[in-house]
Amino acid sequence: MQLGMIGLGRMGGNIVRRLLRAGHSAVVYDKDEKAVASLAADGAAGTTALEDFVAKLERPRTVWVMLPAGRITETTIEALAKLMGEGDVIIDGGNTFWQDDVRRGRALKPRGIHYLDVGTSGGVWGIERGYCMMIGGEKAVVDRLDPIFKALAPGVGDIERTPHREGRDPRIEQGYIHAGPVGAGHFVKMVHNGIEYGLMQAYAEGFDILKNAAIEALPPEHRFNFDIADIAEVWRRGSVIPSWLLDLTASALAQSPALDNYSGFVEDSGEGRWTINAAIDEAVPAEVLTAALFARFRSRKDHTFAEKILSAMRAGFGGHKEPPRKA
Amino acid sequence: MQLGMIGLGRMGGNIVRRLLRAGHSAVVYDKDEKAVASLAADGAAGTTALEDFVAKLERPRTVWVMLPAGRITETTIEALAKLMGEGDVIIDGGNTFWQDDVRRGRALKPRGIHYLDVGTSGGVWGIERGYCMMIGGEKAVVDRLDPIFKALAPGVGDIERTPHREGRDPRIEQGYIHAGPVGAGHFVKMVHNGIEYGLMQAYAEGFDILKNAAIEALPPEHRFNFDIADIAEVWRRGSVIPSWLLDLTASALAQSPALDNYSGFVEDSGEGRWTINAAIDEAVPAEVLTAALFARFRSRKDHTFAEKILSAMRAGFGGHKEPPRKA
Amino acid sequence: MQLGMIGLGRMGGNIVRRLLRAGHSAVVYDKDEKAVASLAADGAAGTTALEDFVAKLERPRTVWVMLPAGRITETTIEALAKLMGEGDVIIDGGNTFWQDDVRRGRALKPRGIHYLDVGTSGGVWGIERGYCMMIGGEKAVVDRLDPIFKALAPGVGDIERTPHREGRDPRIEQGYIHAGPVGAGHFVKMVHNGIEYGLMQAYAEGFDILKNAAIEALPPEHRFNFDIADIAEVWRRGSVIPSWLLDLTASALAQSPALDNYSGFVEDSGEGRWTINAAIDEAVPAEVLTAALFARFRSRKDHTFAEKILSAMRAGFGGHKEPPRKA
Amino acid sequence: MQLGMIGLGRMGGNIVRRLLRAGHSAVVYDKDEKAVASLAADGAAGTTALEDFVAKLERPRTVWVMLPAGRITETTIEALAKLMGEGDVIIDGGNTFWQDDVRRGRALKPRGIHYLDVGTSGGVWGIERGYCMMIGGEKAVVDRLDPIFKALAPGVGDIERTPHREGRDPRIEQGYIHAGPVGAGHFVKMVHNGIEYGLMQAYAEGFDILKNAAIEALPPEHRFNFDIADIAEVWRRGSVIPSWLLDLTASALAQSPALDNYSGFVEDSGEGRWTINAAIDEAVPAEVLTAALFARFRSRKDHTFAEKILSAMRAGFGGHKEPPRKA
Repeated sequence: MQLGMIGLGRMGGNIVRRLLRAGHSAVVYDKDEKAVASLAADGAAGTTALEDFVAKLERPRTVWVMLPAGRITETTIEALAKLMGEGDVIIDGGNTFWQDDVRRGRALKPRGIHYLDVGTSGGVWGIERGYCMMIGGEKAVVDRLDPIFKALAPGVGDIERTPHREGRDPRIEQGYIHAGPVGAGHFVKMVHNGIEYGLMQAYAEGFDILKNAAIEALPPEHRFNFDIADIAEVWRRGSVIPSWLLDLTASALAQSPALDNYSGFVEDSGEGRWTINAAIDEAVPAEVLTAALFARFRSRKDHTFAEKILSAMRAGFGGHKEPPRKA
Repeated sequence: MQLGMIGLGRMGGNIVRRLLRAGHSAVVYDKDEKAVASLAADGAAGTTALEDFVAKLERPRTVWVMLPAGRITETTIEALAKLMGEGDVIIDGGNTFWQDDVRRGRALKPRGIHYLDVGTSGGVWGIERGYCMMIGGEKAVVDRLDPIFKALAPGVGDIERTPHREGRDPRIEQGYIHAGPVGAGHFVKMVHNGIEYGLMQAYAEGFDILKNAAIEALPPEHRFNFDIADIAEVWRRGSVIPSWLLDLTASALAQSPALDNYSGFVEDSGEGRWTINAAIDEAVPAEVLTAALFARFRSRKDHTFAEKILSAMRAGFGGHKEPPRKA
Repeated sequence: MQLGMIGLGRMGGNIVRRLLRAGHSAVVYDKDEKAVASLAADGAAGTTALEDFVAKLERPRTVWVMLPAGRITETTIEALAKLMGEGDVIIDGGNTFWQDDVRRGRALKPRGIHYLDVGTSGGVWGIERGYCMMIGGEKAVVDRLDPIFKALAPGVGDIERTPHREGRDPRIEQGYIHAGPVGAGHFVKMVHNGIEYGLMQAYAEGFDILKNAAIEALPPEHRFNFDIADIAEVWRRGSVIPSWLLDLTASALAQSPALDNYSGFVEDSGEGRWTINAAIDEAVPAEVLTAALFARFRSRKDHTFAEKILSAMRAGFGGHKEPPRKA
Repeated sequence: MQLGMIGLGRMGGNIVRRLLRAGHSAVVYDKDEKAVASLAADGAAGTTALEDFVAKLERPRTVWVMLPAGRITETTIEALAKLMGEGDVIIDGGNTFWQDDVRRGRALKPRGIHYLDVGTSGGVWGIERGYCMMIGGEKAVVDRLDPIFKALAPGVGDIERTPHREGRDPRIEQGYIHAGPVGAGHFVKMVHNGIEYGLMQAYAEGFDILKNAAIEALPPEHRFNFDIADIAEVWRRGSVIPSWLLDLTASALAQSPALDNYSGFVEDSGEGRWTINAAIDEAVPAEVLTAALFARFRSRKDHTFAEKILSAMRAGFGGHKEPPRKA
């Protein structure tokens, strides 16, 4: 099957490569000539001109847009849509806000252009491990493009099968899901990332407590010098908390137990934020996911204005001086 | 009435002064000769020797210990107790952990020494404004020492009276309470401080949101440059959130709207921590009080190990680089 | 000065009454004849027809819309705007989302209609206590309507003056503020309510910890039966945490110490939610305000699906049965 | 190697069985005759008399105590210690508070009795999957008992090996760790469980947000009816968030997508609480782990007193009525 790909960054390029390896064909577009050339070397047809790109595609055309979410995705899809027509499919595989998908799907519908939103998880490992895909859109379109999704998905592999799933949609065990109408794919991916933040923060706090068990403020008989790297490793084996995130942590700690190569400024992307917005819209308490997001906000600040307010209040009622910087 | 005072710091010294002004007499003890001399100038008898101090007191002796909580309070009360006897009273007015009070009260009881724990709020303003006192111990002892507490308390003043309090203990409206048996006083004071942390953090976060409404990451039409000092002031008048803490904040902001004189390292004392321990022992969810405490912990760190763990995981699954320091 | 008022509920009606008492005149509109009649009895001109209402107003007309936020405010302002013209002023005094204000202000501008957003705090007490007003809009318009705001505001009263405010805008001490351009008023009111949630929850958790100090799960020597009503009262006097919210709590507890007249389902309004959305947009950690909001969400549920997930996991890894309902 | 086991519940019994299968021998003790008989049938020597039990053991004796944490563990170890002597080993494999281990280890040392604390994870799956063991105590003792730990541990199995671990303690990859001196084992297990709470709550909140995406309060175009069971399954494959806990969740949801068989009352054990206490002692912010604990506290209540306080305040300032029960 043929797929057009717009955006040949880390994700887009590898998605095309995984498709090519599975015997599919691809036409690729990027403003960066080198990126196009690299994929051409792997067997894709490529171009740096959008009209040319669309012209190279067989009808009905299927174009996967894999760009950083936000303005660039929006304008690219607008430009692309003008060149496409009845029966064509636009897939947004990036980290788009699901309400933007809903809006776009509605705008394209009168022109007969189908829109799919595909939340795509896998990161730098996806080319080998496969991509977990959460898909929103019309059933007929999702079904028609099944060969693409099947090739990109991890497949059943050697992951143990979940009991009681007899009679359920077999695609799920391959690693992709038709989650619902347009917007559903990115909604599910958004929550996936929200959970990811929470899981990461849970481990992070636990390791922080282990690390600080050695501080001098504790009585000597209650102090421990733990080997954090070994603890991360042992928890991978027979405990209740093994996970892929723990695997990655154990690997990072084995390389550098103090993680001196990291400063601790932690970026967040839209999904973590939108997840909390969704929780608020639904009146669902989401303390853990929110705390995980806020910890990232705080990590990027030297001090908050809030903290200065606290100091000012303490000076006001108690004449308290601020303490020197310490752990 | 005569009171012995051990510890002539900011709190202890002013408590004695307020008592002297009210016509009571005082014997004071401190290792610091200057502190003793200062109180002597105000009319107290004073000494730097503990035996001498106890000898100067009329029986039954009443000694108020006003020292920083912890080891020094513990050893001082031990030494003091050895010099006291049947019918004497030891008051711990510091920020002692209430379970230590319970233990001490039990240890002193067989020797006929009475123990009161008096959670004392008022800070640097107490000498003029009076002290709010939360008292734990035997009823007969608390009643006997009523003249002391009455003199230290703020009194009814011009604070509006709460309706429906007819027939209730009139001491409460004076600003002191016999909260229960030994330990009860410091327990109530502990929760007072726990609430204080929560209130402070609530205001602090609100002002932080106002402050950051001006950041460039926001779309221009959704940006505001608020005058934080004026907002703090206007909320004192007719809104739902006036409080003494807001008064202090408004005052600090009027002096220095950006609070440049503060760095944002915020100390915490035992009460905030013990409040959360108590909540956990009682299985009471206390999200806000806990978040307020943790915000202080975080304020005193450059980065947490937790944050480095997050960065390491992100590098692991997504090849993400850490962002530069920014707001 | 003449003001038109749309919406004669608890807030709108009392605002008009306070204006009339101050010697201003008012034209009122409501669909409810009785509400109009009641205000007419107090001296306002009134009508149940919108066109008639607008016709009764002197040019340039000033209309204060005081309706429940949302759809009804939107449609009313749309209908009203069609009847108004160059130089007229529409004030939205309700609990409107500030981004809606920004949008409306922009839409009305080309037609020469001025728009003010006035966050109005005061609740059922406002008619006597005055209203704290946070105003967004053009300076010239806010200045022109100053007599209205001045009459509604609490005035300086006997609230102690904040030091260091010499040379600052004197309106602030009257209890109203021109916070910035359109949207700024409701933004500040939004944060006010966000803080309000946090303050309320801080007190609530503290009282919960006091209440549960009596539970049997605690060792007998660490149990206390506190008089919560007396503690609320004593904290009003000389402590660090007096506030108007504490005054109200002390009053409620004096009437009914167990609060048996309340079930504990706690509503939330838009401001608390929007405050968190704003914090997220600004990347400001707001743990306490968020926890306060989520506590309300949770209070309205029997159980969350999240809790069932937890039970299912526990059954899965440990064969754990769910415990019976208990404290 | 011979091991004595006290406590033949779910954990203790299966630990013995796994040892027997590995060729070790066991003497078991329990007050319950049937439990003893069942293990005897599997090849263990057994008794319901403690003296008899100790007498049956070869010197130096090794006794693993596997009882519910708390009073029963304490009194059993006291009684056992009286019967043991120089060179013998007592292992506490239960969920004991690590500070109790430290105290016990110190108390037994003068008598030459060695004490190990072994945090043991594995639950009902341990007999097949093996137990992850976190061990505190003297190195020589831990080394001597290595055959026991090795037999109980999961072994390397088919879990992918972590890179960069060359030269590190090979026992870790078998699934057990000598974490440090007495107390270290249960400390690490405690943090393991603290993390477990956080991970569980992160998933739980995420699924709750998916579930509530269908509620009527949302605009129709923003509502989704997700198949939660399928989403749990798909995330096991190629996403960032696979874990054993997700496996268990997927399995529970496949059986009963609405989890109608669960009510949502969620128990907590000591470890979750002690983890937060440890974080507080270390001044480590642990928002996520704490929120996870508090969610469990809240799940077991109908309403909190805190919520009634909120309602009382709302009635006080706004005349607000409580809303009816709803989602």
